[in-house]
Parts: sequence; structure tokens; C-alpha cells
Amino acid sequence: MRGVTEAYDAVDLIIAKREKRELTTAEIDWLVDAFTRGYVADEQMSAWAMAVLLNGMTRSEIRDLTLAMIASGERMSFDGLGKTTVDKHSTGGVGDKITLPLAPLVASFGLAVPQLSGRGLGHTGGTLDKLESIPGWRADIAPDAMRAQLRDVGAVICAAGAGLAPADKRLYALRDTTGTVEAIPLIASSIMSKKIAEGTSALVLDVKFGEGAFMKDLELARELARTMVALGTDAGVATSALLTDMTVPLGLTIGNALEVRESVEVLAGGGPADVIELTVELARAMLAHGGLPDADPAEALADGRAMDVWRRMIAAQGGDPDAPLPTAKESETVTAPSSGILSSQHALPFGIAAWRLGAGRARQQDPVSAGAGIELHAKPGDRVTKGQPLFTLHSDEEARIPRALASLEGAWAIGEVAPAARPLIADRIS
Amino acid sequence: MRGVTEAYDAVDLIIAKREKRELTTAEIDWLVDAFTRGYVADEQMSAWAMAVLLNGMTRSEIRDLTLAMIASGERMSFDGLGKTTVDKHSTGGVGDKITLPLAPLVASFGLAVPQLSGRGLGHTGGTLDKLESIPGWRADIAPDAMRAQLRDVGAVICAAGAGLAPADKRLYALRDTTGTVEAIPLIASSIMSKKIAEGTSALVLDVKFGEGAFMKDLELARELARTMVALGTDAGVATSALLTDMTVPLGLTIGNALEVRESVEVLAGGGPADVIELTVELARAMLAHGGLPDADPAEALADGRAMDVWRRMIAAQGGDPDAPLPTAKESETVTAPSSGILSSQHALPFGIAAWRLGAGRARQQDPVSAGAGIELHAKPGDRVTKGQPLFTLHSDEEARIPRALASLEGAWAIGEVAPAARPLIADRIS
Repeated sequence: MRGVTEAYDAVDLIIAKREKRELTTAEIDWLVDAFTRGYVADEQMSAWAMAVLLNGMTRSEIRDLTLAMIASGERMSFDGLGKTTVDKHSTGGVGDKITLPLAPLVASFGLAVPQLSGRGLGHTGGTLDKLESIPGWRADIAPDAMRAQLRDVGAVICAAGAGLAPADKRLYALRDTTGTVEAIPLIASSIMSKKIAEGTSALVLDVKFGEGAFMKDLELARELARTMVALGTDAGVATSALLTDMTVPLGLTIGNALEVRESVEVLAGGGPADVIELTVELARAMLAHGGLPDADPAEALADGRAMDVWRRMIAAQGGDPDAPLPTAKESETVTAPSSGILSSQHALPFGIAAWRLGAGRARQQDPVSAGAGIELHAKPGDRVTKGQPLFTLHSDEEARIPRALASLEGAWAIGEVAPAARPLIADRIS
Repeated sequence: MRGVTEAYDAVDLIIAKREKRELTTAEIDWLVDAFTRGYVADEQMSAWAMAVLLNGMTRSEIRDLTLAMIASGERMSFDGLGKTTVDKHSTGGVGDKITLPLAPLVASFGLAVPQLSGRGLGHTGGTLDKLESIPGWRADIAPDAMRAQLRDVGAVICAAGAGLAPADKRLYALRDTTGTVEAIPLIASSIMSKKIAEGTSALVLDVKFGEGAFMKDLELARELARTMVALGTDAGVATSALLTDMTVPLGLTIGNALEVRESVEVLAGGGPADVIELTVELARAMLAHGGLPDADPAEALADGRAMDVWRRMIAAQGGDPDAPLPTAKESETVTAPSSGILSSQHALPFGIAAWRLGAGRARQQDPVSAGAGIELHAKPGDRVTKGQPLFTLHSDEEARIPRALASLEGAWAIGEVAPAARPLIADRIS
């Protein structure tokens, strides 16, 4: 029963989604506004989110939700910066550290990359959690400082200010601890509300599919990508998407400091082939939006231009790019029980294992461990010999290691034939 | 990701129900215990409850949940009272005030009726909310006072102490505001955990079905009744159930003080036929459990014995049985637009209308209005003439009346033929 001053009642709107009724624009506007004001409580919004996860939302509800999220806060603008702004967003995968090399890489071509990022959500790591493993580095910077950094350095990776889509910020944190992360409508509106409110002129989406991604299925991922591309285009943001495979972990590291280390390797011209490929392909798409369709990002990785921007970007936010990265107190290496070909390496259990080792969080207030995570010593298709290290678990708490190992039961296998090669990029949508 | 000292992670268990996996006994024990300790947050439990509502629970999960709820707190005992204790519980319906005349009626035969009751849940009123409209009456009494009152008066209607199934108490309040009331497994475990922990030796369940009840469907209600009878019997409580029709509101009043007034009419030997019938039938079942299968409850209503216990019961808890009951500030009467036979009167919209008028609550912390509600002036089958009053809405806030009227659109009709008579009691399970 609603108070006289409230247009709707939260329980009615929860029950509506529970019973699969479509919400009106006015109902969604009220719900998001009332949640922002604190009139609709966390426990109501999480029940609503679970109903949305299990029963879905229509396309028009998703659009309304996105617009309501944007309207819950400020809108930024990078007009007058004298540079084209291009942003990228990944729907999240295991070992996905691409933002770290990508932002400085694209900025090294003179574009501005205002990369507002998040913290850990479910079994996938958060970009800010990763960068915070660099001694001194701060995720929170003031809008003026962000603007100055975009002008002077070209790339900023920082936390979205509290003023930007605050309703989304609250809901995002809530979903993380309530088992409601994997809801397509909520993923789409969360991503696009932040990106539209942030005022970027172009956006490239890395929509992942496969068992380590929120979307297990390519077709669902394609639908998510199309929904988001339409949402962006309607809002005046040039938007395109890559559909990329998340069956195996990306690169050879999962965990905060471990992924920073690997990103620096890529910026130094090395690093694993899959991380390089995805970084370069996303950079190409972003550079195309920025009017540089013929630029060669691989060259900027090889000749140190991207590394130079990285070092300036880290330093501008208080970080020391030369400081040693934290390492975890405990580690355990798993070796090959027999010789053969590594035939599988399932992204999801490796992601969950890294999370259990301390790289992610169970509750909003929990800290993450900088050093925790997993180093992979072999990738599917690699030939291994008995006794050879396959992967190493790192944690600050010894007791977490057996639990992580438990989640890795059946997560990898050694066989006699190499698995079929899978293209990393399955499709492009624009 | 769980802390090292926790056996399970709340997110894992939410996702398990979301994905329709059966929880183990140990998982349910942990969840309920961790929720009681405050480690599992309200927003996690409400998301879990929504997943349970939409995906169900197995019979073994329901049993485990009930036992875990009991284990979350104290167990009471009425051994040594020198009287047989018999309790009754209704799954809730619109206008269901039966507990009020029933408890003193059964007590007038020398049995002890320890009626631990709740507050408003969804569109059905709460027994305590109703009794609190009596000036001075207190729902909270100490265990010693309760015992003394059971010995001296025979009937107590009071709030379950915080020590009794505290996990259920928290979950019950949470469900009320998160659209998760109508979940069979949660209804069954909530009712039975409280009743088993309370230590009654016998229990009669009034399981309602029809559109004004949680169970719309007789078969679902039967399954709920069987589940609860089995839970009670297994725990050593002699348990039986009546399946009763909740298609139309019970009696002629819906709302707190209005229902007290009607209950007093029944105790005075008058009142609506359906309220009398159900009171007498439930009393017979309770008296049979108490070793008095031949007692005649109708006589005790007629000769004032039940009324005498009522007055002593109210007075023992600080209430003045002679004080005028509160009335609402505003009212509006709807009259018959044409002559004919009242052919329908749907319980659910009338319940929702009374709730919107202020008789129920939208949030845990909201107060209820004592005077708000609906008086019915005619019942289905009654012949009405154009301009004759059909029902009167009462509210403390004028603005609530149009909203209540809106929910009554199509809730009643005048036709030419009387609706088919429906038996109030559809089945008995023991």
C-alpha cells in the first residue's frame, strides 16, 4: 500500500515483474527515482532484480530503465576538449584485463579515452580492483582533474563519480551480492546508462559469450549487443560491438596484480597472443570511430608509444608505474599428472577459483586481495609433460587454497588431441 | 566468495535456488543461522526468497527450513500447566477475524489456547493489528504473564516473543515488503516453525483457497495443508487442517477495528453466518484434539461463556473491552446502480482496497490505521435494490479512497441470478 505522496508502491512493482507484467515508463521512472531516494529499500530492489532475472524485461522496459538510470544523476560532457572521446566497455570475462593496455594504446593516437570503470562483479574481476594493486594509484579523481588528464595524457581509468547514474551504482553493488548479476536487461541498462551519461561520443562494446561470460550463449550475447548498440545509437553515441569468445580465460593471469603485470607485458610489446589480438582489434574499432580507420595499434604497442601513455596515466593518478606489485603470501602449483595435450581449461571454474582465492568479493564491504589469483602456465592445445606446472594458485590465506582447488575439479583435462581452434572474435555489430 | 570462517557463501545459495538446485540440510542450516546472525543480509535473503517463490523447494528442503527456523531460537513448553494446549492457525484471508472469537470460545471449555499471532502480511490483515485497535490492549506480554493468563483465563492472543524462531520473524517481515509472501514453501515453514517451537500439543490449521487466499487453487492448498500436517505430526504436535473457501470476504467487515466489532457480535451470539460457521467448526476440531469431541461450541457462543472469556482475555492484556473502538475520519458508501442480485464480491480486490485504505502496510515500519477498512452491506446472493448501500469505505486519508475504489473496479456485480452456493469448508485433513 502506497503512501499518499507516492505515485506507486514498490511491492506492486515487484509483484508485477514476478507475474511477468510489463512495467510502464512512469512505473520504471518512479521505481528508479524512489530507489535513489532510499524510499525503495535494498531488499525490495534485490527481490525485483531476481524477478527480472528469472522473468526478463521487454525491450521497451530496458530502454525506460536505462533512461531512468541516466536521469537519476548528472550527465557529463567532453565538448570543448579538442579531442574525440572514445570509450570501450567489456561485459566481463575471466582474466579480462584489456582495458589496461587498451586505454593508453588508443590515447597514444591522440584520441581521448574516458574509461569510467567498476569494481568486481561476480566471478569476473573489476578494472579498478586491478589498478588499485599498483602502489599509490587512486580510482577516485575529481571531474576537473579527469578533464585535465584527458587533455594532457589522453587516457583516464577511474571510478564513475557518485553523481553519474547513482541509481545504477547502487543497483550494481546490490546485484553483486544478491545473485542477480546475470540478468541481461540489468546488464544492458547498467552499462549503457553509465556510458551515455558519461558523455562519450563513441563507444565500442566487447560483448563476451561462452561459459566464462554472463552470456553463455552466442545468440543471447548477440541480442544483448544489439540492444546496447541500439540504446547507444538512439542516444547519439556512435556504438559498435565485438562478440568475443570467453570459453577459456583470457591471457595467462587471473587476479588483480597478476593481470596488471600481464598488461604491462603487452604494453612492452610482449604478452599472450590472445590479449594482444583483442587489444589490437578493439583499438582498431575505437580508432575507426575516432576518424582514424587506418591507424596501426600493433605498431604503437611495439614501439613503446602506448607504454609511455600508460606510465603517464598511472602517475597522473598517484600510482608508481615502477613500484613492485604486491604478491600473495601463499601459493600452490598444480602439475600435469600425465603427459599429453591440454585439452580444456574452463573459464568459469578458473574465475570462481580466483574469486575464492580472494581476488573478488562476497559482500559489498569486503576488501579484495591484490596478490590473490591464478597464473596459468599452459593454454588449451599446448603439449604438456608429466610433472610440468599447469597453473599456480596465489592467496593471502592458506585455507582458501583447498576451496579454490575444489572448484577446479574437472575444470581442465589432458588428452591426446588438441581442441578445435575457436576464433576469439565471433562477430561484429554496428 | 566466502570468508574462511563461513561454511558457505550466500551468493552461491541464492544462485542455487535461482538455478533450481536442491539445497542440502547443511546449506539450509547455515543460511538460516547466518541470516539470524546478520551475516546474510536482508537484500540477499529477499533475492533468495524471490528465487524460492518462482522456482519452488522440495519437500525435504521445506522440512529442513522448518527445523532450521525452530533451531534459530528458543522452544517453549506448556507442560505442567494442567491443561491441554490447542492452537489454531489460518493461512490468511480477507476479513478473517476468526481467531478473535475462537480463542476465548475454546478456552471457555477449559482448554488452554496459546495463540501466538502476527501482524499484517500482504492484503490480509494481522490478528495483532486488529486487537491493537482496542484501547490499551498490548500484544507483547512476558512468558510468565502468558503462562499465568493461560492458567487463569485460558486464552492468550499475543506476539511471538523475539526468542521464538527469530529467523522466521525476520524473514516474515521481509517477505511482506518484498513481494515474496505467496511462496508455498515459505508459508509452510513459517507457520509450522512458530507453532512447533511454541510447544502446543495440538494444532488446527485453517488453510484457505480461492482468489482471496495465498493459494488460489484448492489442490495447491491441499498440498500445503498436507505438508504442514506432516511437519506437525513428525514433530509430535497433533495436527489437522480444514480447507476453507476464500472466494468472497469472510463476514461483513475488512479492517482492524471493524473486524473486532464483528467478532464481538459473534461472541454476543450474533454476527454473520459464515463467521459463526467457521468459528464453530474450528472450535469443534480443536476441542476434539483436546479430548472433548462432543462439546458444543455454538452453545458457548449463545450463552455468553465465550464472551466472558473474551472480556477477561482483553482486560488481562491491558485492553478495555467496553471502550469505543476507533473509527476512521473519512468514509464513502457505494450504492447499487441497479436492482437485482449481488452476483459476485471478489475477496482479493476487497482485501487490496482495505489495504490501500490504510488497514495494511507497505513497509515494515509503516503504521496501520485502526479505523480504516470496508463494511459490506450485502453478500453474494442477496437481492439489492437500486440506490441501496453495497459497501462503505473508511479511511483516515481522503486521498486513499479513490485509489481503493479503483481497485474495486469489476470486483462486484449485480445480475439476475444468484451465484451457485459454495460450501465454506471444502475438505478436512488429519
